[in-house]
Amino acid sequence: MNEIFAQQFNTINWDIEPKQLYAPIAYTLESGGKRIRPNLLLMATDLFGGSTKEAIDAATALEIFHNFTLLHDDIMDKSPTRRNKPTVHVKWNDSAAILSGDAMMIKAYQYISKVGEDKLPEVLAVFSQTALEVCEGQQYDMEFETRSDVSLEEYFTMIRLKTAVLLAASLKIGAILGNAHPADANELYKYGIALGMAFQLQDDYLDLYGDFKTFGKPIGGDVLCHKKSFLNLRAMELANSQQKEVLIALFENTSMDDKAKIDQVRLIYDEIGMRTICQDEIQRYHDEALTYLEKVNENAKSKAPLRAIIEKLNLRES
Amino acid sequence: MNEIFAQQFNTINWDIEPKQLYAPIAYTLESGGKRIRPNLLLMATDLFGGSTKEAIDAATALEIFHNFTLLHDDIMDKSPTRRNKPTVHVKWNDSAAILSGDAMMIKAYQYISKVGEDKLPEVLAVFSQTALEVCEGQQYDMEFETRSDVSLEEYFTMIRLKTAVLLAASLKIGAILGNAHPADANELYKYGIALGMAFQLQDDYLDLYGDFKTFGKPIGGDVLCHKKSFLNLRAMELANSQQKEVLIALFENTSMDDKAKIDQVRLIYDEIGMRTICQDEIQRYHDEALTYLEKVNENAKSKAPLRAIIEKLNLRES
Repeated sequence: MNEIFAQQFNTINWDIEPKQLYAPIAYTLESGGKRIRPNLLLMATDLFGGSTKEAIDAATALEIFHNFTLLHDDIMDKSPTRRNKPTVHVKWNDSAAILSGDAMMIKAYQYISKVGEDKLPEVLAVFSQTALEVCEGQQYDMEFETRSDVSLEEYFTMIRLKTAVLLAASLKIGAILGNAHPADANELYKYGIALGMAFQLQDDYLDLYGDFKTFGKPIGGDVLCHKKSFLNLRAMELANSQQKEVLIALFENTSMDDKAKIDQVRLIYDEIGMRTICQDEIQRYHDEALTYLEKVNENAKSKAPLRAIIEKLNLRES
Repeated sequence: MNEIFAQQFNTINWDIEPKQLYAPIAYTLESGGKRIRPNLLLMATDLFGGSTKEAIDAATALEIFHNFTLLHDDIMDKSPTRRNKPTVHVKWNDSAAILSGDAMMIKAYQYISKVGEDKLPEVLAVFSQTALEVCEGQQYDMEFETRSDVSLEEYFTMIRLKTAVLLAASLKIGAILGNAHPADANELYKYGIALGMAFQLQDDYLDLYGDFKTFGKPIGGDVLCHKKSFLNLRAMELANSQQKEVLIALFENTSMDDKAKIDQVRLIYDEIGMRTICQDEIQRYHDEALTYLEKVNENAKSKAPLRAIIEKLNLRES
């Protein structure tokens, strides 16, 4: 499935005028990524016996949209690199990144507009609603950076909006294109939300407990920037007053060696049992995802690929 | 017509969460502007006997989209004010302006998606194509700033993309919603292009020959920043070698008093006859617009409001 998608996706011609507008788009899209969203979309279409070939344009829209959000997020977050390459706003400049991102969003809409006329209003409604929610998620994420009173509930809302809804929407749009019963499309949407939550929590987990070689990012980054991640927020809730005091001192210490800071935070997290707590939370969403997948009225064999995705998650290290 | 539009447009509820995402949108939209695009759209729908009430959502989409482009352009151009108020990136910050702009574009798509199902694919196609062209126009405009070899032809391409196509698309979408014959919708589109070109040239003209009180911007701004405007590009083409030398010296002089620089440039432009040359160019597009309007198969009385717009242009001072 991925091959048919890649074949069309990688041959989109971005070598058009004005070059300075489209070159950053080509640069962003050719750097790869896991193509999770188009893959989920096509799997959902396939699950209900729809034509994956006809769903490729919608899958393309989702992938372009996702990369657009990364492009604009990288400006806002001042990220210097993405997928081991300089970000667009670094390689070009902020204006190029803003404008090319805008053009990407419009291209995403052009691709999503290619779905069959009878399905267009419904697909567009899901797509736009989701796109807006992703912006809301990014907004909350930015606000969290300067807030010290972020609750775990707010964190879950944020990752649902910033990450989970786009995975869920990919599945739902795929289901709609596969002529799924609306109830099934909605169960698949919920499966996608749980999958996205598990995915993000796994990311938080791997940031501290992962292996640099497979994770691809330096370990402990969330500790060093005191990110409001699940680990950091939940640890603070569960820490006793002494542990809390030490954690705050560690997070606020700006002169300390990175490795020492990460090691000491990890030590306290071990005392609290954060490794297991986080694994349990991931498992909870993992189980929830499977429950929703169960409810989809298709045979187990057809659902095997989607079941495999959630099961692979527990083994994920990157 | 404008009242029905304003009534719905001004009561859109932007007071929703997250406040920091939607407040800049409300701020941008409540600062007014001339509402030219929604007005053109509704006039076109009305011309062909369509329901303007049903076209209000599309008109709303065009107005939101236009304001989105201003918001993002202001970041890229580092403009401090817009409509006598601080720009969003100044009042908030760049990130807020980027993200709120993104949300505005999605909202514009949500509104355009509300058009009747039978017209949705065609309207979407016009909308997205135009949106992309506006990005291309902005890209060229930015590139012109650092280039010294911009031709008049390139300038016309840029203003067509940056300004004219959105006016033309407003008219075409309005015509489609009014069930116009495709040939008529296309003539109206061409009328819109000519109108937009005349409009932008008038802007260039007023920048030097307008009256501060009615124009609302300081006079001579394009001279001071040596903008590649029609006046500056055409004057350089027509100047003799001595005039050219003086003009270049004036444009490159950074220590000179603003007023003195503007006065001396204007003196040379008077020698060349730029005032009349620019007026003639505006007249040419004015006449072209009327020719296309003539071709629209509706009676003169119905076309009177659109004729009035182009005729008012020659009297425009703001």
